[in-house]
Amino acid sequence: MTLEGLLPELAVIRKDFPILERTLAGGVPLIYLDSANTSQKPQVVIDTMVDHLEHHNANIARAMHQLGAESTEAFEAARDKVAAFIGAPERDEVIFTKNASEALNLVANTLVWPGERQVGPGDEIVITEMEHHSNIVPWQLLTQRTGATLRWFGLTDDGRLDLSTIDELITERTKVVSLTWVSNMLGTINPIAEITRKAHAVGAIVVVDASQAAPQLPIDLSAMPVEERPDLLAFTGHKVVGPTGIGVLWGSRAVLDALPPFLGGGEMIETVRMEGSTYAGIPHKFEAGTPPIVEAIGLGAAVDYLAHIGLDAIHAHEKAITGYALEGLRSVKGLTVLGPLDAAARGGAISFELDGVHPHDIAQVLDSRGIAVRAGHHCAKPAHARFGVQSSTRMSSYLYTEPREIDALVEALEYTRSYFKLDRA
Amino acid sequence: MTLEGLLPELAVIRKDFPILERTLAGGVPLIYLDSANTSQKPQVVIDTMVDHLEHHNANIARAMHQLGAESTEAFEAARDKVAAFIGAPERDEVIFTKNASEALNLVANTLVWPGERQVGPGDEIVITEMEHHSNIVPWQLLTQRTGATLRWFGLTDDGRLDLSTIDELITERTKVVSLTWVSNMLGTINPIAEITRKAHAVGAIVVVDASQAAPQLPIDLSAMPVEERPDLLAFTGHKVVGPTGIGVLWGSRAVLDALPPFLGGGEMIETVRMEGSTYAGIPHKFEAGTPPIVEAIGLGAAVDYLAHIGLDAIHAHEKAITGYALEGLRSVKGLTVLGPLDAAARGGAISFELDGVHPHDIAQVLDSRGIAVRAGHHCAKPAHARFGVQSSTRMSSYLYTEPREIDALVEALEYTRSYFKLDRA
Repeated sequence: MTLEGLLPELAVIRKDFPILERTLAGGVPLIYLDSANTSQKPQVVIDTMVDHLEHHNANIARAMHQLGAESTEAFEAARDKVAAFIGAPERDEVIFTKNASEALNLVANTLVWPGERQVGPGDEIVITEMEHHSNIVPWQLLTQRTGATLRWFGLTDDGRLDLSTIDELITERTKVVSLTWVSNMLGTINPIAEITRKAHAVGAIVVVDASQAAPQLPIDLSAMPVEERPDLLAFTGHKVVGPTGIGVLWGSRAVLDALPPFLGGGEMIETVRMEGSTYAGIPHKFEAGTPPIVEAIGLGAAVDYLAHIGLDAIHAHEKAITGYALEGLRSVKGLTVLGPLDAAARGGAISFELDGVHPHDIAQVLDSRGIAVRAGHHCAKPAHARFGVQSSTRMSSYLYTEPREIDALVEALEYTRSYFKLDRA
Repeated sequence: MTLEGLLPELAVIRKDFPILERTLAGGVPLIYLDSANTSQKPQVVIDTMVDHLEHHNANIARAMHQLGAESTEAFEAARDKVAAFIGAPERDEVIFTKNASEALNLVANTLVWPGERQVGPGDEIVITEMEHHSNIVPWQLLTQRTGATLRWFGLTDDGRLDLSTIDELITERTKVVSLTWVSNMLGTINPIAEITRKAHAVGAIVVVDASQAAPQLPIDLSAMPVEERPDLLAFTGHKVVGPTGIGVLWGSRAVLDALPPFLGGGEMIETVRMEGSTYAGIPHKFEAGTPPIVEAIGLGAAVDYLAHIGLDAIHAHEKAITGYALEGLRSVKGLTVLGPLDAAARGGAISFELDGVHPHDIAQVLDSRGIAVRAGHHCAKPAHARFGVQSSTRMSSYLYTEPREIDALVEALEYTRSYFKLDRA
């Protein structure tokens, strides 16, 4: 088994994450394999947030005093860092939201109202069957509210998008195509460029849920040919070693300018009279109220940390660990991996079934050995339904995951089989 | 000058806030009089957040492992603490949002869509001329989108609501009355009970922006007679010594149940099929996606901290400081306070004009002496327009404010007058 691509300084990286020192009930050390759910935080992110709260805390933009200037500067520097992290053509195209769900809802919500991109009866929105609920429900609400029609790509048996229907799905009627870059359940990496090219050819805009992609794939929007570059892209801070409470919506200036405001309040206005208001330009137009200041600053430190290690190196690490895990998991009798079996075609989340044991029971046995995985529908009920299951068990790795943790998982799954006496059955 | 009501343990309280030790450019100590903009954070809030991030970080609800259980427990305990802080009749009526603006927008946004509270043409929404932009713009968007009409209470010359028009404003056509409890510009404390009683009598719901009230007034919703209890109440974490990125919408179960969902995504659903979804009950219905977990936990520590000192004691302290400040400010020649002059009728934000000096210039001179105040429109342009000014200077105190800081402000304002040679003019 090759493990080429592992981060060479893995032991050093692990020391950056204080929680990895933790022991759990019974004194067992933590083996954290739930990073697709939320990533752990390096000390530098925590320290940056503490330094802000203890020494620089003030409201931004509105405050002209020294603390206000320091806080505003740190907040806007975080926007620069995030813009660099995804290669945004313009830093003002980076909108801070509270999470990826809000970013996706912002888009679906504003498309309801008058504007050049307004969606109406007869229009079609195309998503996929492997979306996280946060990229399904907003579009269901949009289509219910506008009389538009929701359509979707189905999945192949090996957990990829069924692209055979692309010409029927993406047509002149299509206004929006919204899909995930990397599936949070199946791990599948989708052909964003190909689908975007097709959507742009019919005049549709493309929204990409990069919640699982941003942590592990190098993203350089500026380097993408315009016809293959999504129009909007969402991800969340807490999956890229940043804090909760902060998400990102990147959008091209042209599309963001064409959308009406989302939330109304302070900072998003140009002027307010009782009779009516006018709105600020991006990014402020979409950042009503006091934003998540310390969270944005924490996210800035987080993407700096990842960039310092290098997204190419992190991606190679993830591929190596994923390949190692796929091999190990497939050695467990009765275990079926949902999604592609080729590590190069997928991200670091691997959902699986184990014949005869409920995912919740698996997770419980693993937990007793300190191994944290997720069991359930992973906010992807339709994708589970597609494979005829209610739920699954999911392991997900990240830049701090070691091969010995995968060994421990495989061994614990063997133990689970013996615990439930599956060989006797 | 009486200073009865000052917190007796003020020196101890100040030691809880690390930023108060800071010195600014030129070595001058920080005098922070911008707490209505954002409050400073006690060490216990910072430490609670750090402890969570270093030892317990995991996603909530979805994660069944030990870290997940710890994180979920801490998050839901924070909901209990917030519910206790405002005397919520039910803990599940507490919805975590990203800030107060989102909480207010949640209400205005969902009232657009079918449901028993849906707003339509001919319906009226009543607000006031002293609202923060975050309680104006959402209602402008709502009325533009529904064909309803926006109406508002005007202000008296001393900065109170002009209640003489109440019978013309609140009528059978009124669907919503939304107003601030305490003005962020004028400091005015509004007669919430009286207005709510009137609104309820015509079948309207009442939304209260408690952003400035929650930090300084004891709130006990359960103790209010139902006919005087608002239906919805919003406030933000960062003004109650908590972190940014977290706000609260409290609503009565009956009203929250009647509202359609706001953001779609994980956790807010009951089930999701591609063809349609059903939604969870409160509070989850309104908490799509990964919530601000560490922020909610920080807010829990914050309201615990305030409750430990006691909101009655904090309110008495604010009244004492405000009275002392009003007296000091009025001793400055050419200075006019906007809003009520009676400390008992107002909160701790005092906006003022100084003849012949632009508020930005005042703020700059004060800043050079380490005094942080806010200058501008304070996100309340209509209230400024009402008083014929574009902007003002605002000082705002909190539980850590000392009389000597007010003395320094008054002295610095005298210095400002001499700096701009106002006596020679």
